[in-house]
Amino acid sequence: MPHDLHDFFYPRTVALIGATDKPTKPGTAILENLSHFKGAVYPVNPKHEMLLGHHCYPSIAAIPDAIDLAIIALPARLVEQELDALHEKSIRRIIIISSGFAEAGDEGVAMQKRIAEKTKRHGIRVIGPNCLGVYNTDNGLDSFFVSRERVSRPATGHLSIISQSGAITVILMEALARDGMGIAKAVNYGNRLDVDDADALEYFADDPQTAAVAMYIESVTDGRKFLSAAKACAAKKPLVIWKAGKHELGAVAVASHTATLAGTYGLYQAAFRQAGAVEAYGFDHMIDASKAVALMDYPCTGNRLLIVTNGGGMAVAASDQAQQEGFTMPPVPQQVQERLGQAFPSFFVTRNPIDLTGSGNNEDYYTALKEALPHYDAAVVIVLMGATTVSEEATSLIARACHEAKKPVTCCILQGLGYTQEATHALLRLGIPVYPSPERAVRALAALMKATCKE
Amino acid sequence: MPHDLHDFFYPRTVALIGATDKPTKPGTAILENLSHFKGAVYPVNPKHEMLLGHHCYPSIAAIPDAIDLAIIALPARLVEQELDALHEKSIRRIIIISSGFAEAGDEGVAMQKRIAEKTKRHGIRVIGPNCLGVYNTDNGLDSFFVSRERVSRPATGHLSIISQSGAITVILMEALARDGMGIAKAVNYGNRLDVDDADALEYFADDPQTAAVAMYIESVTDGRKFLSAAKACAAKKPLVIWKAGKHELGAVAVASHTATLAGTYGLYQAAFRQAGAVEAYGFDHMIDASKAVALMDYPCTGNRLLIVTNGGGMAVAASDQAQQEGFTMPPVPQQVQERLGQAFPSFFVTRNPIDLTGSGNNEDYYTALKEALPHYDAAVVIVLMGATTVSEEATSLIARACHEAKKPVTCCILQGLGYTQEATHALLRLGIPVYPSPERAVRALAALMKATCKE
Repeated sequence: MPHDLHDFFYPRTVALIGATDKPTKPGTAILENLSHFKGAVYPVNPKHEMLLGHHCYPSIAAIPDAIDLAIIALPARLVEQELDALHEKSIRRIIIISSGFAEAGDEGVAMQKRIAEKTKRHGIRVIGPNCLGVYNTDNGLDSFFVSRERVSRPATGHLSIISQSGAITVILMEALARDGMGIAKAVNYGNRLDVDDADALEYFADDPQTAAVAMYIESVTDGRKFLSAAKACAAKKPLVIWKAGKHELGAVAVASHTATLAGTYGLYQAAFRQAGAVEAYGFDHMIDASKAVALMDYPCTGNRLLIVTNGGGMAVAASDQAQQEGFTMPPVPQQVQERLGQAFPSFFVTRNPIDLTGSGNNEDYYTALKEALPHYDAAVVIVLMGATTVSEEATSLIARACHEAKKPVTCCILQGLGYTQEATHALLRLGIPVYPSPERAVRALAALMKATCKE
Repeated sequence: MPHDLHDFFYPRTVALIGATDKPTKPGTAILENLSHFKGAVYPVNPKHEMLLGHHCYPSIAAIPDAIDLAIIALPARLVEQELDALHEKSIRRIIIISSGFAEAGDEGVAMQKRIAEKTKRHGIRVIGPNCLGVYNTDNGLDSFFVSRERVSRPATGHLSIISQSGAITVILMEALARDGMGIAKAVNYGNRLDVDDADALEYFADDPQTAAVAMYIESVTDGRKFLSAAKACAAKKPLVIWKAGKHELGAVAVASHTATLAGTYGLYQAAFRQAGAVEAYGFDHMIDASKAVALMDYPCTGNRLLIVTNGGGMAVAASDQAQQEGFTMPPVPQQVQERLGQAFPSFFVTRNPIDLTGSGNNEDYYTALKEALPHYDAAVVIVLMGATTVSEEATSLIARACHEAKKPVTCCILQGLGYTQEATHALLRLGIPVYPSPERAVRALAALMKATCKE
């Protein structure tokens, strides 16, 4: 039997209650976004006969088809009165986009509670309220009330996103799209009247399109259920979790944001460790770690790190970070150094970091990695594209060496203007995660190590 | 009397020894870059009569003009034999670009020592070897051997860069140019045969074009001289220092990079504190802190922080970081909350963080800041440009509120695609530093606080 969340991501038919064409209204953006959905879309609004080329229905009852998923984009006070009609239409999955519930004071708390009781009684599963809902690249389903002009959607990929915060969902997707990374699915459950963190983890653990999971939480519904779901998920695929509201000031912000208790950070950290999940330290690390675990095909099975660079200062920065992340950097074995010494000019440094200096060319990167990488667990490769001796071709040679050695590699290429951006995207297409600073390349690799080195 | 370094940045005439037109040769890129210099340029190379439209001279002696600065871009082994001719021509400032000296083994160490002795005897000041030299936006002087196609040059601004590493110099400049930030001057002194960290600090301390200094070091020549120069500089303008080679692995990398001893990190940290300099933790923080201190006109004179957002999750992340950086976040005063409550819909949160939610518009940002900012020492303002209710106009309203209150503000706008980039550049033009993650906006503000809150 499919997981309860399956029908949220794979409905045949979707009704949008509160569809409209007024600019800036959530119901407008959602209807536009649903035009990408490979299924039937039924807008509901008694004031319209047609909306964006769809026939528009005066009520749920008037729709001449069974509805698998209803998306509600009405003002909060109008949501409750829709529930009976939804039940009569035998709709068992609803997403409540509307804000103005538990996060907005006592009245909202009471409304949310009444909706929870009624939907539970009817066996209706609910995502939301106060949420974006779901995004599925597999069938184009997109209940997000942000337009594609404003927020780019990532292409199809293997990472799925679970987020308590709509804002974080959106900026994660925007950042991944910008970096050329694809995603599989995303869910933002907001006030989690019903569907919560653990449900989403359970579903993605077994979703064949999802190879890795990135999760943002401020709190969890039920610690025990969360831990067990996280453990089950992390046992099958890398799971990166960013817990916000770590410290006192953050916890205060959580209270006004999602009206929940942030809980003791130490307990969360212990749970992440026990579950085998990787903790992301913040926004940048969340993006970086997610890219590494979702893109890189090879596990990082140990902590012996090789660094290859054409800029010595960048290797110093990477080495500092490597130490903080628990890597060791044994010297390149003597016989390998001798072979490299024959292939390279005498002023290249062949120890570790291997420094090709400003004179190193594309082929030198390949030579260095081909000879040395088999003796390490992983490598960080830094390319200053400013050197006239390197070109975009370096990216395919680095990727080739990585795939030949079957060892994980992260790259650092400063994201500057046109030239470096092309190299960055070329590397991503070749399966090599790439980062804009040496520290971030090292920390991302460390996240991959934590996710995949299980002894 | 001007500082000894003055003539390196403001020569009337420059000779380039080793000028050429072969692609990928340093002498080619430097000659191209010198075309931007507002002074006379004399290429020297016996094999050419013309180079890039300049008359080319067979030797230094053949140049029919006094030379204030000679740039040497010859292979290392050919440098030494030029010194007598330079001395006879009364040249008192030389930049040795060439690598292959102390960083390249015993022979190089010996050559470098002989050059140091000879130039000292003749009263010649030397930048390098193994360096990029100088860049001065005030007169277009540019001795860097990287082409402008490869590495963008920042426009004119108020930040000056001192760096022991050429690679770091280049990527700092590239990152600043990408972000629309200008610089005043840059110097990379490489093996510092003569001119060193302390000399550069002394010079920039009194340079009227320099309002703030960003410095990358792996080691210093003389701890006492460095401390005294850093103290003198930080007393006059914000000084941000990134010390690499902090930990054992980094120190090993320093030894092969600049052939120097990284020294004990703790001693450096104590020196930075004593000098009143701000320590940057790594590459990203170096960029972030430099932007904050160079751009922001108002000092951060205390630690009471206001956060304004249209995405709750982003404010939680910012609050977590605020606590780690030593900020406090007192609630918005009751009477101000009441005024905001009248101006805003009831579901906006007016405490602190002020959360305008996905419905907040451009004017709401102005209202929130105008009312609340005067009660704080500084603010971090987060704008999710994905919300349909905000537009680029938010940037000018935020800047207006900042300038009216005369309090420092840093912004967080995710650097996504076209739309957000325009907003980012608009804010920078208005003097507001802007960052791609909430944590980075907070850490940059903390750097400004350390640089400007001196009680």
